[in-house]
Amino acid sequence: MSITTVGLDADDTLWHNETIFRLTHDRFVALLADHGDRDTIEARLAGTEQRNLRLYGYGVKGFTLSMIETAMELTGGEAPPSVVREILAAGREMLAHPVETLPGVDEALAALSERYRLVLVTKGDLLDQERKLAASGLGDLFAAIEIVSEKERGTYDRVFTRHGTGPDEAVMAGNSMKSDVLPALAAGAFAVHIPYAITWAHELADAPENHPRFGALDSIADLPAWIDERA
Amino acid sequence: MSITTVGLDADDTLWHNETIFRLTHDRFVALLADHGDRDTIEARLAGTEQRNLRLYGYGVKGFTLSMIETAMELTGGEAPPSVVREILAAGREMLAHPVETLPGVDEALAALSERYRLVLVTKGDLLDQERKLAASGLGDLFAAIEIVSEKERGTYDRVFTRHGTGPDEAVMAGNSMKSDVLPALAAGAFAVHIPYAITWAHELADAPENHPRFGALDSIADLPAWIDERA
Repeated sequence: MSITTVGLDADDTLWHNETIFRLTHDRFVALLADHGDRDTIEARLAGTEQRNLRLYGYGVKGFTLSMIETAMELTGGEAPPSVVREILAAGREMLAHPVETLPGVDEALAALSERYRLVLVTKGDLLDQERKLAASGLGDLFAAIEIVSEKERGTYDRVFTRHGTGPDEAVMAGNSMKSDVLPALAAGAFAVHIPYAITWAHELADAPENHPRFGALDSIADLPAWIDERA
Repeated sequence: MSITTVGLDADDTLWHNETIFRLTHDRFVALLADHGDRDTIEARLAGTEQRNLRLYGYGVKGFTLSMIETAMELTGGEAPPSVVREILAAGREMLAHPVETLPGVDEALAALSERYRLVLVTKGDLLDQERKLAASGLGDLFAAIEIVSEKERGTYDRVFTRHGTGPDEAVMAGNSMKSDVLPALAAGAFAVHIPYAITWAHELADAPENHPRFGALDSIADLPAWIDERA
């Protein structure tokens, strides 16, 4: 068996992301505290995000628009200007937030890049993902960057065929069972789940049972050894 | 000389886009008519967009956020909720707008795709551009889609190397002198300017003088013949 290519998710696999969304959620809940308790506000925001995914896709800009829309809903269409301004500011801060790579990432990617072709496969806003990659200092380790609107079986088939030797000889690693692991396995690739402390509800899914190409690791630090054993 | 690959811009080259932005501008000016005349409002919006390009990039979502921000500026931070709701609705309508291909596009692309590898090269929101391509019915004619955050010399070098036989054997066609023509020529490709009725101020630039690889056409209908003569 041969492995030539390693696909890596970005947000919450290489650097913190959901933590920053969480902080913004907290700020949003505080802003609208007069109009509902935390659970109510969170549920409305999640509903708006889910409904808007088809139009807005993933990323901070769509999230910001969904926050404003939810604020309008929770206030009967009368969200005060100060709330809207705060939400705009929160979105801008998310987009300008410093990028902090997760523990072990720098070393693991340096090791992997010596032996395999690395491909970044991520959803989100194009410009924002490019910014984060540049700020992370990891950009030079990747042979290719694929910013995609959905992560489905066909996505991995296409990405690993274009940038590697096909999914059969590729590994995908990431924190989302739903987006990184299951569709990559379906495409015929290896897939490794590396959980992050928080997972967005939209990305939850069960682990595959007894799949010969599936792995679960506690840390990205263990990824090079896992792949080397199978290559 | 040989030409193997043709790059095509999307918005205002294959389908109407600026027209839809214009309609939204008109609506925005009407909404804020109590706070300034058309020129003032347009100038503030253009200033906000320009300032936010670095954070938001190109596309409808960033434009919507910039409209809300401008409304706040023009009202001393007190834009009424109804104005914000109208702007959100306008943004959503832009994202859901039907795609109308420009005259001659379908025939020109069908002819070109028989002889050359077609690559779509466009800025804007990832999901929105994918939606418009799908809705246009033109998707199957393209060998590759590149949605990029900026169109610079290096962009064309990379795209035509990855999807073709290098910029030397490629043509880029689009409505923006600044984004489609000048950087493609700088990369060593041929480039054809096909103007649209309206050009966003940000995309204006002078035509190159006496450049052997530059062409200017009134309609995309003339593009296959222009390329065939040089291939």
